[in-house]
Amino acid sequence: MTHRSLPVAADFHVDGPDQVRAVFYGLGSDGTVGGNKATIKIIGEQTDLFAQAYFVYDSKKSGSVTVSHLRFGPRPIHAPYLIERPTLVACHQWDFVDRFDLLAGLDAGGVLLLNSPFPIEESWRRMPAALRCGIRERGLSVWLINAYRVAREAGMGQHINTVMQACFFAVSGVLPRQEAIEQIRASLRKTYGRKGEAVVAMNLRALDATLDNLQPLDWRQLPAEDDLPPPAPVADRLAEAPLFVREVIAPLLERRGDALPVSALPCDGTWPTGTAQWEKRNIADTVPVWESDLCVQCGKCVMVCPHAVIRAKAVAPEALVGAPEGFRQAPARDPDLKGRSFTIQVAVEDCTGCALCVEVCPARDRTEPKRKAINMAPQRPLREAGRGHWDYFLGLPEMARGDLNLHKIGQQQLQQPLFEFSGACGGCGETPYLKLASQLFGDRMLVANATGCSSIYGGNLPTTPWSTNAEGRGPAWSNSLFEDNAEFGLGMRVAIDQQRQMALELLERLGPAPERADPLLPAALVAAIRDGDQHDEAGIVAQRQRVEELKRLLHAVAPEAPGAAAAARLLDLADALVKKSVWLVGGDGWAYDIGFGGLDHVLASGRDVNALVLDTEVYSNTGGQMSKATPRAAVAKYAAGGKAAPKKDLGLMMMSYGTVYVASVAMGARDEHTVRAFLEAESYPGPSLILAYSHCIAHGIDMARGMEQQKAAVDSGRWLLYRYDPRRTERGEHPLQIDSRGQKRPLAEAMATENRFRMLSFSQPERARALARQAELEVARRWAIYQALAGTPAPSPSEAPA
Amino acid sequence: MTHRSLPVAADFHVDGPDQVRAVFYGLGSDGTVGGNKATIKIIGEQTDLFAQAYFVYDSKKSGSVTVSHLRFGPRPIHAPYLIERPTLVACHQWDFVDRFDLLAGLDAGGVLLLNSPFPIEESWRRMPAALRCGIRERGLSVWLINAYRVAREAGMGQHINTVMQACFFAVSGVLPRQEAIEQIRASLRKTYGRKGEAVVAMNLRALDATLDNLQPLDWRQLPAEDDLPPPAPVADRLAEAPLFVREVIAPLLERRGDALPVSALPCDGTWPTGTAQWEKRNIADTVPVWESDLCVQCGKCVMVCPHAVIRAKAVAPEALVGAPEGFRQAPARDPDLKGRSFTIQVAVEDCTGCALCVEVCPARDRTEPKRKAINMAPQRPLREAGRGHWDYFLGLPEMARGDLNLHKIGQQQLQQPLFEFSGACGGCGETPYLKLASQLFGDRMLVANATGCSSIYGGNLPTTPWSTNAEGRGPAWSNSLFEDNAEFGLGMRVAIDQQRQMALELLERLGPAPERADPLLPAALVAAIRDGDQHDEAGIVAQRQRVEELKRLLHAVAPEAPGAAAAARLLDLADALVKKSVWLVGGDGWAYDIGFGGLDHVLASGRDVNALVLDTEVYSNTGGQMSKATPRAAVAKYAAGGKAAPKKDLGLMMMSYGTVYVASVAMGARDEHTVRAFLEAESYPGPSLILAYSHCIAHGIDMARGMEQQKAAVDSGRWLLYRYDPRRTERGEHPLQIDSRGQKRPLAEAMATENRFRMLSFSQPERARALARQAELEVARRWAIYQALAGTPAPSPSEAPA
Repeated sequence: MTHRSLPVAADFHVDGPDQVRAVFYGLGSDGTVGGNKATIKIIGEQTDLFAQAYFVYDSKKSGSVTVSHLRFGPRPIHAPYLIERPTLVACHQWDFVDRFDLLAGLDAGGVLLLNSPFPIEESWRRMPAALRCGIRERGLSVWLINAYRVAREAGMGQHINTVMQACFFAVSGVLPRQEAIEQIRASLRKTYGRKGEAVVAMNLRALDATLDNLQPLDWRQLPAEDDLPPPAPVADRLAEAPLFVREVIAPLLERRGDALPVSALPCDGTWPTGTAQWEKRNIADTVPVWESDLCVQCGKCVMVCPHAVIRAKAVAPEALVGAPEGFRQAPARDPDLKGRSFTIQVAVEDCTGCALCVEVCPARDRTEPKRKAINMAPQRPLREAGRGHWDYFLGLPEMARGDLNLHKIGQQQLQQPLFEFSGACGGCGETPYLKLASQLFGDRMLVANATGCSSIYGGNLPTTPWSTNAEGRGPAWSNSLFEDNAEFGLGMRVAIDQQRQMALELLERLGPAPERADPLLPAALVAAIRDGDQHDEAGIVAQRQRVEELKRLLHAVAPEAPGAAAAARLLDLADALVKKSVWLVGGDGWAYDIGFGGLDHVLASGRDVNALVLDTEVYSNTGGQMSKATPRAAVAKYAAGGKAAPKKDLGLMMMSYGTVYVASVAMGARDEHTVRAFLEAESYPGPSLILAYSHCIAHGIDMARGMEQQKAAVDSGRWLLYRYDPRRTERGEHPLQIDSRGQKRPLAEAMATENRFRMLSFSQPERARALARQAELEVARRWAIYQALAGTPAPSPSEAPA
Repeated sequence: MTHRSLPVAADFHVDGPDQVRAVFYGLGSDGTVGGNKATIKIIGEQTDLFAQAYFVYDSKKSGSVTVSHLRFGPRPIHAPYLIERPTLVACHQWDFVDRFDLLAGLDAGGVLLLNSPFPIEESWRRMPAALRCGIRERGLSVWLINAYRVAREAGMGQHINTVMQACFFAVSGVLPRQEAIEQIRASLRKTYGRKGEAVVAMNLRALDATLDNLQPLDWRQLPAEDDLPPPAPVADRLAEAPLFVREVIAPLLERRGDALPVSALPCDGTWPTGTAQWEKRNIADTVPVWESDLCVQCGKCVMVCPHAVIRAKAVAPEALVGAPEGFRQAPARDPDLKGRSFTIQVAVEDCTGCALCVEVCPARDRTEPKRKAINMAPQRPLREAGRGHWDYFLGLPEMARGDLNLHKIGQQQLQQPLFEFSGACGGCGETPYLKLASQLFGDRMLVANATGCSSIYGGNLPTTPWSTNAEGRGPAWSNSLFEDNAEFGLGMRVAIDQQRQMALELLERLGPAPERADPLLPAALVAAIRDGDQHDEAGIVAQRQRVEELKRLLHAVAPEAPGAAAAARLLDLADALVKKSVWLVGGDGWAYDIGFGGLDHVLASGRDVNALVLDTEVYSNTGGQMSKATPRAAVAKYAAGGKAAPKKDLGLMMMSYGTVYVASVAMGARDEHTVRAFLEAESYPGPSLILAYSHCIAHGIDMARGMEQQKAAVDSGRWLLYRYDPRRTERGEHPLQIDSRGQKRPLAEAMATENRFRMLSFSQPERARALARQAELEVARRWAIYQALAGTPAPSPSEAPA
């Protein structure tokens, strides 16, 4: 700007010669950042070395790229910029070898650490040629480890942080190897002590196994470039993408967003939907494979998939003529779908490998009980074929929405989801509910989204999972603040109602009247649009057709005709004549805490809005802080000694109005109940509230078994299933209907399956017992209160089997 | 500032010669401002004249001075400043003749309109000499009307607005008299039409009577100055006031606040309490007079007095030796007070004349049933003696707090109120609850006050009704925002708890220990303070004595002694060792709406705070807007067609936690129940919520009968009395106890006694009936729910007498 800057020579650096400078490429939630923070602590606190760390990552819940920059050295470090000349580069995800220039700035003689699922020679062959050349030219020390295998065998599932941390200490030379190992041991004991001895032992086992499995790659012993086959041409996966995706989203995804001019961005801030499909993150180690012969076509795998990567279609058999090789199908089993061919397909490149689908699958091979109708298999061998199958699948016709029986999960799940491939954690308990809403109402849905996980995975620039169907209809979505989201959504409702009202007035004005000999619009159409019954799918489809006819007529009005101005205005507003569905979406931090005042106000207003609370019982997005939805006895941030207060009963509070539809659901406990509640809530012509139990990584559970945890919460009475429908009063029935079937399982035992409850019994066993007793009493009392309110005779918890 | 301003001649004015410029002195809520607004509308809308108005008043709920500035003329008015040269001055309150220079700027030949309760000659004699001289010198036209008598006789009670408006038109000449009268008639029909035909007729009657009663005062016919007695010397009522009152508050009260230097104001914003007592507003036309022979000494009149102007004491007879003449007393009737003399006194200069005390008095003269033990009588004749009696009364000793049985209203009401002479409306339904709290806990109370009526009458600069007892102890009070008051009060609680914790640690540090041969504090005192039982008055008194002893010992520590620094710190913190009582106070606008999110959060926190909701079922302070506490079918601003949604059940919502003490009270229905709830709430060592039904001018009722309206709300089932005490669970009892005794009175009939419900039946009778039916159903349903929750067998509303 001033033209006074001095030129900087490209080779000018001020890095200290005695520094270790390490850059780590990881995947969000693979433990890279956490492991590096532990490393910094060890070196900073336990040695005389100085240490510095900076972490670059976006707000995706998991699966996004993280880059850690760590410096160590004997002298103070004053370097407020990223590492440009690393002495060590660690790549914690094999796929990154294709995506990033790992050797950028790496000094000759530096170290490269690779997490590879392949043996040494295969790894070498699979590297891009440029990487191999760079290694050879700079004479790098290269180390390989199959971290996922080591972690899995140590019982740590996908958690490779301890393994990769040990590798770093082993190859970086920042500390003598033996000292480093001892320090890691101490650190693991400290970090995991409160989670119990078993977790500590598991980590220590992983540490030992790491040192046995870390291997040097001696490139001098491996094939030279001339002995390797030339690389296959890489298809441009964005070739068919819309212009905006190619010109704006792609550069942002490739970390080149800073180079975009302001003019490339939409001037009003709106952003194209359906864009997450272009990311193709390929982050799953294993993906589900469908066994068409075993499948009972229940739709459960499709329903629970948090990322909408498993989908089903039922098509006329002739539609499958020309299906690609290996494309599986089976005759549809549902009598309603008689004569159709049924298929389930997996978007292997979008899958996160969470395995919820496998856990929820009820169908097993009788001869080989471990084999289900859906099973996990390594992703890489399936990737190429899977991509082709998926693309073919997308081209198959959808069934007409009006033809589906939505109370049967198998049919309901044939609805196209309009929420796909979000950045939520693998196994997320929230997103299946959003996907369900998008299937049921997505083509006429407006979503006001509170800040929280759902606003991050829902609209994480540059992409959004909210998408559209073939007609271009899909949810309109916007994120407001934590503290005003309900009001924000109410504004959407008021605006639509106002537009509809205005459209109706214009309609009447342009329709027949005694004083108009030749009205612009025929009487029958005006009446049909005004009085059109839109209470179900068929009615909405019919109304859409009427509105199309209306638009056709309005388009034909000559500009100089009498009423032309009103016709033009009605053309603008005509879409408001089709029923819209307004949703207020957020987590418990929003609904129970920060946005509660507004939510209460909006639900009290009587307006037709639907609030969906994705209740993880904790502030998930910010790292697990206690909310008023956190149950008694759970450990959370700000409740290190277990929460001493009860969980707030938001449902009961809102039921007290008598005018709000309230449902409490848990998909993992009863999926058809969840669907019923969504349908009832949406159809209720007033405010509705759905409390949706959402398992979460913050609960300290195996996420693959999230749906079972939901069931445990219901079976132990901790989470009630119920529906409160004010319409029942008009029929002389109790508005409250309890759908839980009593306590089938002791509460304490169910709580012990989640680490958030269990960990307190290690650190403060006496307090843990006292809190658990209180929790038990509360569950019994709540059950009694709900029974009293429902006025239905049903067993009290004490009569139920313990 | 620039030294460039031109000098302005004192006689320079730009007022148009053809303008009518009128200045009106009124009392808040006497209708002056409203009447003038109607006048402006009439002239501005119905004539060719231009009009301008500006109103000067403070935020006192009623009883403060209002000054209206009105200009009218044939040409556009550009005068963005107050009227300095009026052509007409109207004084709507007789007492102002002594307080203000009414003739300031009034042109020779101008008009003076006086509302006087006296005949012409007496009025003339009672005027200050300066006023008489001014009238004579300037040759003014003077008009008199006894507006209060005219209004009363027309059935309008204290409402003089119509009367004074007619007078203005009659004497100002701004319109031809007959035209003006017709315009007023039309205006009255328009304004009061929706309140029913009876109200319109009443106003038209008042209009006619006004013209018959308006009299010219011809000073030429009246005694000259020499024929009048010299004026009596005026006592300086502030002579005994503290310096701050004399130097800061008095100028502010006299409307000379702009002349105060910044340095006169407290630098940290704290403001002395107990200052409302210096206002002596003398705004009551009539005040209560106690009949000692008829009185049963029940204390009800003292309890309901919104302004703490009726008080009782029971003293040793010898204390009354030397009582001034006419000072009434009687032997105490309560056996617990045997041998004492009982007296009730009235602060006639602070009374607003609301007559709640008379309405609530249960004792009647058998021979003359209209005569009660307390009756209203004109204030003026009582003023002088009353002042002396009151001053004498204040000097009588208070009974020891520990000696009173607080469950007997007669004894409880002997407690000194520390909330006196607020600027609330006459007959206010809120302030008796605050006064009660100040009696019970005022000497150790901290109040966080939400914005609303209670923040206006609670801390309306330059005075506050919150005051202190003889020991200087009284509530600490502060006002925060509408939206954060609960959190603000929680901060007070956290701060006190922290101070107490610190004080206890210092106490232990300065007490005996094995390594300290000669501790600064004796073991017995340390233990007694640490373990002191403060659950009742006696315990608190004892703890205060121990803390005094502690302070004495700490004061005696030599500055160089070991531990002197800790001793000094403990001296600062020692008062935190005595139990404090934190109160979150506000109206329904705060608790149900704008501050609800925070209130819910604070009550869920488990901290020991007491929330008092003064529920007027409407935003009273801002003029009657609907809140979520507004009951179904009531008319309010934003609910012109009657509220279509139900009243929010805040109590039930908070009961759902199971950890919050919740009480719903209505003093006018059961006063001893109210006291019990306050005592229980305060003693509960966790969060408490008291919902206090407060009648309000916004209800459209005769305020003198406010307590009966409270009873009607309870008897009709619209307001439930209950107490939910989590402590009862520990004793194996139901925490919820319903204290209402079923529905004793049909809901519709009770609602019809309040204009907020009734007015809809005039404007939209069909809708009014439908809403009333819904309200009835809701009351029945709510009763059933509460019965179910309480688990107690009790008659349902349908079984109760209708």
